[in-house]
Amino acid sequence: MNAITPASAERLVRVPLGERAYDILIGPGLIARAGKEIAARLKGRRAAIITDEHVAPLYLDELLASLQGAGIQSSKLVLPAGEKTKSFEHLMAVCDAVLTARVERNDAVIALGGGVIGDLSGFAAGIVRRGVRFVQVPTSLLSQVDSSVGGKTGINTHHGKNLIGVFHQPDLVLADTDVLNSLSEREFRAGYAEVAKYGLIDKPDFFAWLEANWKEVFSGGAARIEAIAASCQAKSDVVVADERENGPRALLNLGHTFGHALEAATAYDSRRLVHGEGVSIGMVLAHEFSSRLNLASPHDAKRVETHLKAVGLPTRMGDIPGELPPAEVLMDAIAQDKKVKSGKLTFILTRGIGQSFAADDVPASEVLSFLREKHP
Amino acid sequence: MNAITPASAERLVRVPLGERAYDILIGPGLIARAGKEIAARLKGRRAAIITDEHVAPLYLDELLASLQGAGIQSSKLVLPAGEKTKSFEHLMAVCDAVLTARVERNDAVIALGGGVIGDLSGFAAGIVRRGVRFVQVPTSLLSQVDSSVGGKTGINTHHGKNLIGVFHQPDLVLADTDVLNSLSEREFRAGYAEVAKYGLIDKPDFFAWLEANWKEVFSGGAARIEAIAASCQAKSDVVVADERENGPRALLNLGHTFGHALEAATAYDSRRLVHGEGVSIGMVLAHEFSSRLNLASPHDAKRVETHLKAVGLPTRMGDIPGELPPAEVLMDAIAQDKKVKSGKLTFILTRGIGQSFAADDVPASEVLSFLREKHP
Repeated sequence: MNAITPASAERLVRVPLGERAYDILIGPGLIARAGKEIAARLKGRRAAIITDEHVAPLYLDELLASLQGAGIQSSKLVLPAGEKTKSFEHLMAVCDAVLTARVERNDAVIALGGGVIGDLSGFAAGIVRRGVRFVQVPTSLLSQVDSSVGGKTGINTHHGKNLIGVFHQPDLVLADTDVLNSLSEREFRAGYAEVAKYGLIDKPDFFAWLEANWKEVFSGGAARIEAIAASCQAKSDVVVADERENGPRALLNLGHTFGHALEAATAYDSRRLVHGEGVSIGMVLAHEFSSRLNLASPHDAKRVETHLKAVGLPTRMGDIPGELPPAEVLMDAIAQDKKVKSGKLTFILTRGIGQSFAADDVPASEVLSFLREKHP
Repeated sequence: MNAITPASAERLVRVPLGERAYDILIGPGLIARAGKEIAARLKGRRAAIITDEHVAPLYLDELLASLQGAGIQSSKLVLPAGEKTKSFEHLMAVCDAVLTARVERNDAVIALGGGVIGDLSGFAAGIVRRGVRFVQVPTSLLSQVDSSVGGKTGINTHHGKNLIGVFHQPDLVLADTDVLNSLSEREFRAGYAEVAKYGLIDKPDFFAWLEANWKEVFSGGAARIEAIAASCQAKSDVVVADERENGPRALLNLGHTFGHALEAATAYDSRRLVHGEGVSIGMVLAHEFSSRLNLASPHDAKRVETHLKAVGLPTRMGDIPGELPPAEVLMDAIAQDKKVKSGKLTFILTRGIGQSFAADDVPASEVLSFLREKHP
């Protein structure tokens, strides 16, 4: 019994949040087993599946069949794919679908899709009847290692991204690793940026392991499952320490301040830049900026860049196709994203690989001159 | 110093919900002191006031001046009065106003109004930035003794009332008893039905005190403050025992199952029936139904009816002006409101004054024949 079978390759990460504790299952074939796993954990026997037009043709029938096989009566709502779906209008549509499906408190909303579907459906699950059960079936690497865990949900408004939402933990996360085979290389890489992030935050050994094993993570199999499980465990640790983001959870934003500014500067045009790519460039910038502030060695920034470049991720602002606005405009986007108090910013900086920390006194002027240097 | 001065007449009820604990202040002149009381408790110095067109001309300027005097920068949004305002569209408008006012996590949304404004504003406060601070300044007796305490927020949809919302506790409730002088007699009476409810749930001594002192409660002064404080304390006790309504909090629905059905049957037309009036009739029906099931003495039902009639509240379905639909239609409304499991309903019944309990096995057929008898 020493051979690695699919069953033995499966991993379970338990998120120990008291009465809101839940399991994350990671491995192949989980969509086919979804009905059984949900029925074992939830009292209700109704579900409203929310998905998008890209994911539905690939996995919806399999999920529906699995639920039916477990005696769970389910409805489906197929939404347009893309970030624009995280809107008040679509939130209304999801709430209406969930109520029409007569989902009660012990029944479930099931998000079948990436981060957009997860954030939107989780928000609806958090507010219909002041909270019904919620199951995440993340279908992108990014959502498997990041957004499906931790309970942050939300939508965008013209004031900004994710400004309206609730904390609503899922009751179960089913990260079916088979679905990752249908991702484009670019999508997989973008998710990988968040995997690498967990190493850079506070797990230098994991980062070193990724440097050594990334090719196997990309090609699938046990190393991939291991990398996803380690990422979910890392996210779980941070969430358990700070469920409602009053403190340490901020470390998850490593690379995200620069990354968000670049996403805004490219008008969230996924042809030019997707979230994980922004995070990749942002993490390199965060390490370089920390080095410029004499907090970290320039060698560490180089090491981060070398690894991210090796897997094929962009690491420089110049890697983004098309023109970028000047440094001052990027700085404005950063100032809008963060609160600027008396010219000081809160920023995730680092003292080296796996030694990140939150600094709340970074002079905006330092950030601006750094950006000018990087993007003259 | 034995004379009752306004300051000594003021009452404080603390709702001990751990890190979500908060104060309810009850007494005269609290709107004028709002800025000071808020500044003493909240870190932020921004506020978005949400109110309605009926309340704004009476109290908005006084509240704005009080906030300004305490160094709190505030914006205002004046909405249409009435239940229709508890909609997705108005929720969007409130969220937009709160974001436009640049209210951050430690700043406040302030609800100045009755239950509609409180429920809507509290929902917005619960979802903007995944939760900002929230202050209730209830201006009706109903909202002072019921909806402003306990953290239930929400809006209505075509599927039903309050089906979408969150639990979001206020950080402070300021029940200014001076504002009650501007209520119509009918509005005050409707709120009084919920005051009497607390006695009927589990405080027979309080109900007896109301029977003896209701005229003073209606005429104002110390007895009124006492009755409101006792009601807030009773609500607080139930909320602390069951913040998210998994058990004992259901007792607060005494009289509400029949009451909601009557509200639905009159199409929520406040000219015919307002919420508190429906609860008044509903409480009498709940006691009579309990008597019919041989749980309580018919004498108790009579005592409840006598008191509610004495204060001028309707106590019979026949007291509602206009035609009511037949018993079968009322029964449908009850079945829609509650979950019917195998012909059984969950219902708040009673063994006598102040001895209510939740029964989860009430045969729907018994309810229907009772309704037919009461409304042939």
